[in-house]
Amino acid sequence: MRTLQVDLGERSYPIHIGEGLLAQPELIVPYIAGRQVAIVTNETVAPLYLGRLTQTLAGYGVTPIVLPDGEAYKNWETLQRIFDSLLAERHDRRTTIIALGGGVIGDMAGFAAACYQRGVDFLQVPTTLLSQVDSSVGGKTGINHPLGKNMVGAFYQPKAVIIDTSTLSTLPARELSAGLAEVIKYGLICDEPFLGWLEDNMSALRALDSAVLTEAIERSCAAKARVVGVDERESGLRAILNLGHTFGHAIETHQGYGVWLHGEAVAAGTVMALEMSARLGWISVEERNRGIRLLQRAGLPVVPPVGMTPDDFLEHMAVDKKVLDGRLRLVLVRRLGDAVVTSDFPQEILQATLSADYRTLVAKLGDE
Amino acid sequence: MRTLQVDLGERSYPIHIGEGLLAQPELIVPYIAGRQVAIVTNETVAPLYLGRLTQTLAGYGVTPIVLPDGEAYKNWETLQRIFDSLLAERHDRRTTIIALGGGVIGDMAGFAAACYQRGVDFLQVPTTLLSQVDSSVGGKTGINHPLGKNMVGAFYQPKAVIIDTSTLSTLPARELSAGLAEVIKYGLICDEPFLGWLEDNMSALRALDSAVLTEAIERSCAAKARVVGVDERESGLRAILNLGHTFGHAIETHQGYGVWLHGEAVAAGTVMALEMSARLGWISVEERNRGIRLLQRAGLPVVPPVGMTPDDFLEHMAVDKKVLDGRLRLVLVRRLGDAVVTSDFPQEILQATLSADYRTLVAKLGDE
Repeated sequence: MRTLQVDLGERSYPIHIGEGLLAQPELIVPYIAGRQVAIVTNETVAPLYLGRLTQTLAGYGVTPIVLPDGEAYKNWETLQRIFDSLLAERHDRRTTIIALGGGVIGDMAGFAAACYQRGVDFLQVPTTLLSQVDSSVGGKTGINHPLGKNMVGAFYQPKAVIIDTSTLSTLPARELSAGLAEVIKYGLICDEPFLGWLEDNMSALRALDSAVLTEAIERSCAAKARVVGVDERESGLRAILNLGHTFGHAIETHQGYGVWLHGEAVAAGTVMALEMSARLGWISVEERNRGIRLLQRAGLPVVPPVGMTPDDFLEHMAVDKKVLDGRLRLVLVRRLGDAVVTSDFPQEILQATLSADYRTLVAKLGDE
Repeated sequence: MRTLQVDLGERSYPIHIGEGLLAQPELIVPYIAGRQVAIVTNETVAPLYLGRLTQTLAGYGVTPIVLPDGEAYKNWETLQRIFDSLLAERHDRRTTIIALGGGVIGDMAGFAAACYQRGVDFLQVPTTLLSQVDSSVGGKTGINHPLGKNMVGAFYQPKAVIIDTSTLSTLPARELSAGLAEVIKYGLICDEPFLGWLEDNMSALRALDSAVLTEAIERSCAAKARVVGVDERESGLRAILNLGHTFGHAIETHQGYGVWLHGEAVAAGTVMALEMSARLGWISVEERNRGIRLLQRAGLPVVPPVGMTPDDFLEHMAVDKKVLDGRLRLVLVRRLGDAVVTSDFPQEILQATLSADYRTLVAKLGDE
């Protein structure tokens, strides 16, 4: 087992990474203050891992809360079901909420924990690659609004993140790829050598090689913990973690939540951010192509949805959380391994980026 | 104008109290970071004070959000209307939400500020006595759940509290009395001499004597600021501010939100807490009666609703936020001016308190 630490003063917490951790009470029990536990999970994950975790928590009063699966359910109605169950089972302020599932479950269970009786403890037990390398770490919680993704939420840190890598054995290939989008992101924004490592190990990752997966998860979590430790509430640096997300959120909102997986939208959005960085002259076309090829090799879409116009993008991007005083800010790559958040770009470059013919661009890539 | 300070480290903020503050830009503008402002108010307050505050904010992009009036609307559906408006008008993270109204508006606007884009600035501009002396100070925000009051919310501090005492001139007498329940509470829990002052000045308060009201508000806010400064998140001392509230919340939930005003339910609940304290031998029957008489003179109900049984109370009290590991904790009065939070009482005394014949008890009071 590897253990990292997220350093946030009195809100610091550990990330434990290893095989079979779900079945180890000595790892989980120390983070539970009271006698009540609610495990929030979904219909897909429950048959696989709810029993195992419940067994690990023998001796506690456990309330299972099984939600429908998917981004389309990351809304108030589903959140309300968590509160209904907690109140029906009379969970008090000393209860602990455990998020057992992917990013949607983690975001909703975390937000429920932030709000229930004005805040109770929670643990992240992520079971998808995306949640293990990204969303379970750093305390961003929330739900979607019909007009924008993650528009209602809280910064609320878990007491611990328990990553059982053996849960990846049941993860569909499409979801594994979605997680790799965020893994590749860390290379692009802050760890250029990691890009080389990923190029060398992409096949092993997709083949679920346990040692290679663990290393990718650890390296990703370490990068995230570093950034969050510097800027918990995204007043500056933390925004670089959103490379590809402004374009990506526009895609998700436009297509309808859940049609594209979050990681898939981020992948296409990352291609757009690389294209814009190249058009600004910050990275070369070769470097842009290197990023795109890696995303392709991870099994990810690298072109925006057919029929989504520049105006569609601009409309959804106008409510992005990085907009300040009416100015859109974007995460762009100054060079591979070095991202910046900036509103300092000519509008024409953004327009050209939104209008670019990504299909042709990617087709050419194959010819090289 | 008087100014108090709530000391909470980097979350410290001032409370300004005085006549006509709503019309003073120099008092309000310094707390607004961006160019956008949303004023959350209700249908009753809007015709009276929304225009004045909007005028004070000339030069800012102001979005008025006018909600229906009353505790019955302190729920998710109404909260969602705030998010809808903020997103439709494209408010970004630098926006400021101003709560203009009573406790319900302050709780909802504050919770919306806590959650919108994971947290934006907000100001409290309370216009009822209850919100001026209690709910606008201390950062408790939230909404009700059908199964329990304030069950979903956040601790989230405002940037400032602006108390314009001239707004009380339009406050209905019933609402003024409801506010006095919380004023009297401070005397009972931590300021015995204040009880004497209130006995001397009750008529002047109900006649809206400006100087006397200002003193009552200042003294109440000072008490609240002191307690909150010691225990922001209610891990201990702060719970004493809930004298009468566990019984009172049960009354509100049982009767249906909004049938009894919050302050009315707290008044009847305070009588029950005094009765229980007397039954425990902590205060004399004379002291109990002194408290009840003061609540009566404030124009408040001092007996629980007809037909509400001990079991009704116990059912609603079981989900009180002060319950820990299944044990009910109550705020009781060890002596006048000294409240404690305790689960250390014989169950029979609680049962006797819930079964007591308050009508007869109060009728006898009149005969003395």
